[in-house]
Amino acid sequence: MKILVANCGSSSLKAKLFDEGDVVLASGQVTGLDAGASSTRLQIAWGGQEREEEVSAKDHAGAFDLLSRALLDATGSAEPDAIGHRVVHGGDRFSQATLIDDEVEAAIEALVPLAPLHNPLCLVGIRAARRAFPQARHVAVFDTAFHQTLPESAYLYALPYDAYARDGVRRYGFHGSSHRSVSQRAIEWLGRGPDGTRVITCHLGAGCSTAAIRDGRSIDTSMGMTPLEGLVMSTRSGDVDPGVYAFLAERRGLDAREVEAILQKESGLFGLSGHTGDLKRLFELAESGDEAAERALAVFCHRVRRYIGAHLGVLGGVDALVFTGGAGENSPALRARILGGMEGLGLVVDEARNLACAGREGTISAPESRAEIYVIEADEERAIADETRELVERLPS
Amino acid sequence: MKILVANCGSSSLKAKLFDEGDVVLASGQVTGLDAGASSTRLQIAWGGQEREEEVSAKDHAGAFDLLSRALLDATGSAEPDAIGHRVVHGGDRFSQATLIDDEVEAAIEALVPLAPLHNPLCLVGIRAARRAFPQARHVAVFDTAFHQTLPESAYLYALPYDAYARDGVRRYGFHGSSHRSVSQRAIEWLGRGPDGTRVITCHLGAGCSTAAIRDGRSIDTSMGMTPLEGLVMSTRSGDVDPGVYAFLAERRGLDAREVEAILQKESGLFGLSGHTGDLKRLFELAESGDEAAERALAVFCHRVRRYIGAHLGVLGGVDALVFTGGAGENSPALRARILGGMEGLGLVVDEARNLACAGREGTISAPESRAEIYVIEADEERAIADETRELVERLPS
Repeated sequence: MKILVANCGSSSLKAKLFDEGDVVLASGQVTGLDAGASSTRLQIAWGGQEREEEVSAKDHAGAFDLLSRALLDATGSAEPDAIGHRVVHGGDRFSQATLIDDEVEAAIEALVPLAPLHNPLCLVGIRAARRAFPQARHVAVFDTAFHQTLPESAYLYALPYDAYARDGVRRYGFHGSSHRSVSQRAIEWLGRGPDGTRVITCHLGAGCSTAAIRDGRSIDTSMGMTPLEGLVMSTRSGDVDPGVYAFLAERRGLDAREVEAILQKESGLFGLSGHTGDLKRLFELAESGDEAAERALAVFCHRVRRYIGAHLGVLGGVDALVFTGGAGENSPALRARILGGMEGLGLVVDEARNLACAGREGTISAPESRAEIYVIEADEERAIADETRELVERLPS
Repeated sequence: MKILVANCGSSSLKAKLFDEGDVVLASGQVTGLDAGASSTRLQIAWGGQEREEEVSAKDHAGAFDLLSRALLDATGSAEPDAIGHRVVHGGDRFSQATLIDDEVEAAIEALVPLAPLHNPLCLVGIRAARRAFPQARHVAVFDTAFHQTLPESAYLYALPYDAYARDGVRRYGFHGSSHRSVSQRAIEWLGRGPDGTRVITCHLGAGCSTAAIRDGRSIDTSMGMTPLEGLVMSTRSGDVDPGVYAFLAERRGLDAREVEAILQKESGLFGLSGHTGDLKRLFELAESGDEAAERALAVFCHRVRRYIGAHLGVLGGVDALVFTGGAGENSPALRARILGGMEGLGLVVDEARNLACAGREGTISAPESRAEIYVIEADEERAIADETRELVERLPS
């Protein structure tokens, strides 16, 4: 089964084409899809070759047509058998990957109020794909689905209950494909079945989240109703005192949506440092004595320690701690800094092993560490392809 | 030195009179000071006697005059030598108890934007007391002061840096007198000096907060810029996704201050249960099969576990965990429920000891527990009296 995976982000569309054996035939992206972009570019890579060009895609629909065609042409492929679509918000309607029909498409649309920035783009991609490949199976893979196992005690906020019952305000959690796939790998590496395992996963990229996973099921996570809660991110604030909203609204003459825009786009590592939301660059700046960069890193790492601890508190212990995501996979310095001082909790890093795992998977814990500490790649597109394949193979043909 | 302690709450004024030897001579309160109250009542207790009557105090100033006079008359006391005033917000100007003069009074007033509900009432009390007892020393004891030792990594939110530098948006933390006094007691009970000790304090009352204390100094805490962040409280939400604000504002046609009012007054245990914000009553209701009460308790306990864990993550381990505050001191059921499942983290409760500590101080951990678990009374007025006495005794007479 040939599977195309489509991932609509706010300013880009990424896609990967997988063959029967889960091998990537080609991958590519169209960037510059946000209103302010100066040019829209298509890049693809296949069989050791690469191509990049300026294109005139006006939106994610046009980008999907161009990119899918380019990937198929470059690899001489016929139409894909199935298309896996990353969908950000599945509310509490979707607890697993789901075959898309008109009714499912309407349900994803009904969730737009919960994810006004993301679900509309996902829908544009889905509709373009269904038009372009009407014979293929289309599967929605939800960022929220893996966390649908959260118990009520973890998913409810302490708001008037009708905020949940009537308006759907609750913790949903995101990065589900990543937390699911790396925790499954971690459980394999532990060498026993999922029962009784306690895993903490840290997805550290431009967006960041953690999850507490017991018996292979998510029981707590740092992101909430939206991807704004929890850890410090590239430009997102993560947790703030709820009192900050009214304070900033009054102080600066803003409404709630304008305060949120500051928390979404001008905060996080970028807001603290005043320079950049990129962790790698911040380490370089901090190294050269930049105090603002050092401050941003200190707050970032403090917050990750807080959440690793919070999940420890909820799990009552941990068998494996996993780092994944761009920074989680590639920055030994970041991992060392986060874990410094946590030895008493049974989390002991081996310095050499840690250094060896930069863009490479492996175990970085010392022999005396009570918990295993792993670096595992979060290949979200592959995880989406896997969930798509699993679903389609179960369907009557 | 005779010390009067004054504690101005939103609807009441509490006061206690201490003699030289730190013995309570008399205590009392005036209740019904909020706009909607049907009657204003004065209650005092001294030397085994009690008195209660309806009074006509219009505000906290009138209440202070009535209550202080009643306490002094009942005990046949002359004017107090010093008056300790609880002040909610000291910003980052005040890191310890401070003798009040006009300049300090102005500084407390300048902090009103950070604590618009609380500091104005504190100021009314201070001004009434300075008028009534011009010869006495007046001391401001700040709820925030103990947490001024938080490192930058713990007190900064990941907002644009000027939100801190220009507008003072940062984590301050509250319940400082309680966290300070019970952690000092815990360190005494551990039987060694503060150096190297790691203490986690849980103040669970109508307001709830936790603190991580290393070497006797606060290094992290659950409350933030305001007392709204962190644990689930009686009517306060504690942590919510920052995305909830704009969502509820749009969904319900509210502005940011109106959303905050929901989070302050209609949320927490009360909002979740729909019945009450009182933990004792919720346990009774849950016992009788009330699902909403059970849900509120489950969310409450989950959040406390999360913060105990978060502080464990930051401290890297713990020597003593302390429960204090009304519910923390008086509810073995609550403590047992919070700590259930945390045995693997070295926190093991002894059931009989736990049951024995209801309204009584003591150790509730089992012999095999790696950390001591203590129940210690949070006598905030006594803590304020102690801080007042320490300061005044250092002053030139």
